[in-house]
Amino acid sequence: MSDLKMNIGTPAGVRDMLPAEMADITAVLTPLRQVLEEVGFGELHTPALELEAVMALGDVESTEPAFRLLDEQGRTLVLRSDMTIPVARVVATRLRDVPGPFRLYYISHVYRGRPERPGYPREFLQFGAELLGRGGTAGTLELLSAVVRSLAAAGLRRHRIVLGDTTLFPRLLRQFEIAQDTRDALVHELVTRDFAGFKRVLGAACEAGGISGENAELIASAAHLRGTGSIFETLDPRLREVAENLERLYVSAHEEVRQVVMFDFGFVRRLGYYTGEVFEIHHPALGEALGGGGRYDGLLERFGRPMAAIGFGVSVERLREAKRADSDAVLEARTLGETA
Amino acid sequence: MSDLKMNIGTPAGVRDMLPAEMADITAVLTPLRQVLEEVGFGELHTPALELEAVMALGDVESTEPAFRLLDEQGRTLVLRSDMTIPVARVVATRLRDVPGPFRLYYISHVYRGRPERPGYPREFLQFGAELLGRGGTAGTLELLSAVVRSLAAAGLRRHRIVLGDTTLFPRLLRQFEIAQDTRDALVHELVTRDFAGFKRVLGAACEAGGISGENAELIASAAHLRGTGSIFETLDPRLREVAENLERLYVSAHEEVRQVVMFDFGFVRRLGYYTGEVFEIHHPALGEALGGGGRYDGLLERFGRPMAAIGFGVSVERLREAKRADSDAVLEARTLGETA
Repeated sequence: MSDLKMNIGTPAGVRDMLPAEMADITAVLTPLRQVLEEVGFGELHTPALELEAVMALGDVESTEPAFRLLDEQGRTLVLRSDMTIPVARVVATRLRDVPGPFRLYYISHVYRGRPERPGYPREFLQFGAELLGRGGTAGTLELLSAVVRSLAAAGLRRHRIVLGDTTLFPRLLRQFEIAQDTRDALVHELVTRDFAGFKRVLGAACEAGGISGENAELIASAAHLRGTGSIFETLDPRLREVAENLERLYVSAHEEVRQVVMFDFGFVRRLGYYTGEVFEIHHPALGEALGGGGRYDGLLERFGRPMAAIGFGVSVERLREAKRADSDAVLEARTLGETA
Repeated sequence: MSDLKMNIGTPAGVRDMLPAEMADITAVLTPLRQVLEEVGFGELHTPALELEAVMALGDVESTEPAFRLLDEQGRTLVLRSDMTIPVARVVATRLRDVPGPFRLYYISHVYRGRPERPGYPREFLQFGAELLGRGGTAGTLELLSAVVRSLAAAGLRRHRIVLGDTTLFPRLLRQFEIAQDTRDALVHELVTRDFAGFKRVLGAACEAGGISGENAELIASAAHLRGTGSIFETLDPRLREVAENLERLYVSAHEEVRQVVMFDFGFVRRLGYYTGEVFEIHHPALGEALGGGGRYDGLLERFGRPMAAIGFGVSVERLREAKRADSDAVLEARTLGETA
């Protein structure tokens, strides 16, 4: 009997969802789906199984932790660990003869072969959207607007979109003619969000004479620069120049986007295929981002169909957590109001 | 470039679904979901990955063609090839302390490692429902009613539910004291729907004196006996006895079920866990069943929680094909009416 019990669980890192939870998921996803359809996105399904060679076109980091298996021709298949790459594949293959732009969304499970940390799920439901064939400020703002509207439709209230530019820091550092390895080290510390490490590398470079004290100060302040659109008003000209992308976004953005966006100059996203604006969606009730995305203007070229593109993905589980916290907060505010 | 093209397809047997198709799938599934919820079923999600040991508790045939992979503890995982077994696992584990009956439905992809025939998909979307903890005629009729209502809600018109009893033929053959190996051979021919083979085995047994000509005739006629409830009116008493299950179902069934059910005495379903009534859903526009199910009163015991159960599953793709054919038929009838 205990043998039986041991054998009839689920594999590590995946779990069942019972009807109450499924009903809640449907309640969150239904309005979200509706909003994405309203703003012109169409749903896409891609198979759970992809050729590893396809996933490898994206990024080492996006395929590294995948579940692998072999088909009978000996080709390595993986359970998709990312939806951006399958969407890029579809646009470059089945939609090859269709002119863009493409507006595609998905509600799909993605899989991670190794847990990044204990309790980190290996199967998780993600919703997301990709806008392909529309570059620049217009494309980014359209996508951000879809993010903002879908999160509102899903019932979120206190979220913030932290927006950066993955090219900002490399370009800033190039201005000062710092040695390549120091620049790489600084960007690496930003990617891993290790500000102590960043300060250490910067201090060492300063002491070695590879960078002036004044410039080091500017660089250090840029790494921490974070705020609403007002930060552009008092910007050092050298920062302003490398942040022109972000400022243009702010100037052109509708109020609905401005209200939730927080600019972060030191924000660089991990995935290697991002080429410009990157963002994460944060919520005070969560210890980590509930989702994020960015511009990947170079990825489609790897599939033989060069095209500007931007997308985002959100964990449905974290979205529900954030939503619950917001409902609790509303309830609490109401209760306080009543008793006041 | 041609190297690139070769490498950026999908794995064999799986495919992408573009927005028009996804919208059609949602249009089919939405009312169906609604009906199942209305009659008391709740949605269940189980992970795409199951322990092979769990799937093996079901049936060799249901695990044999699965995609396999190893986790880091060296346990074999499979992509679920069936949803009945995962549902049984949930009821026996997470719901162990909840008293039944359980009414669970799912809309999930299932996976087959090897194509049964060219073009047979390896990933396919299935919807289905399981009623656990309610046995006998009442349980079977409740489940059949859910099948009938959901197919109607999905827009199907000309479907038939072919209903048999997997124990009927073995019990019939036992009445005549035929040798065990002949009985097994006869049932095997029925499972594979090889009526020529069935006749051959029966003829050989007859010639060898293992069975009288009269009895052989009765057995042969039973294997082909198929029709609406009226077939019970003129039944040979020996057949009537082994078909009492089916007759009881017919007598107690509501009109909505009676209208689409076709009894088939020679119908035995392949999967080894079926223990009584079995059925397939057929449509004139399809070369094969669009789904089916049956009673599996013994399966839950293998998971340590004995319980009567019955369920069904339907291929969403075949359901859509049948629905399209029915819409075309309606359109054609209308056009003929107009021109007449």
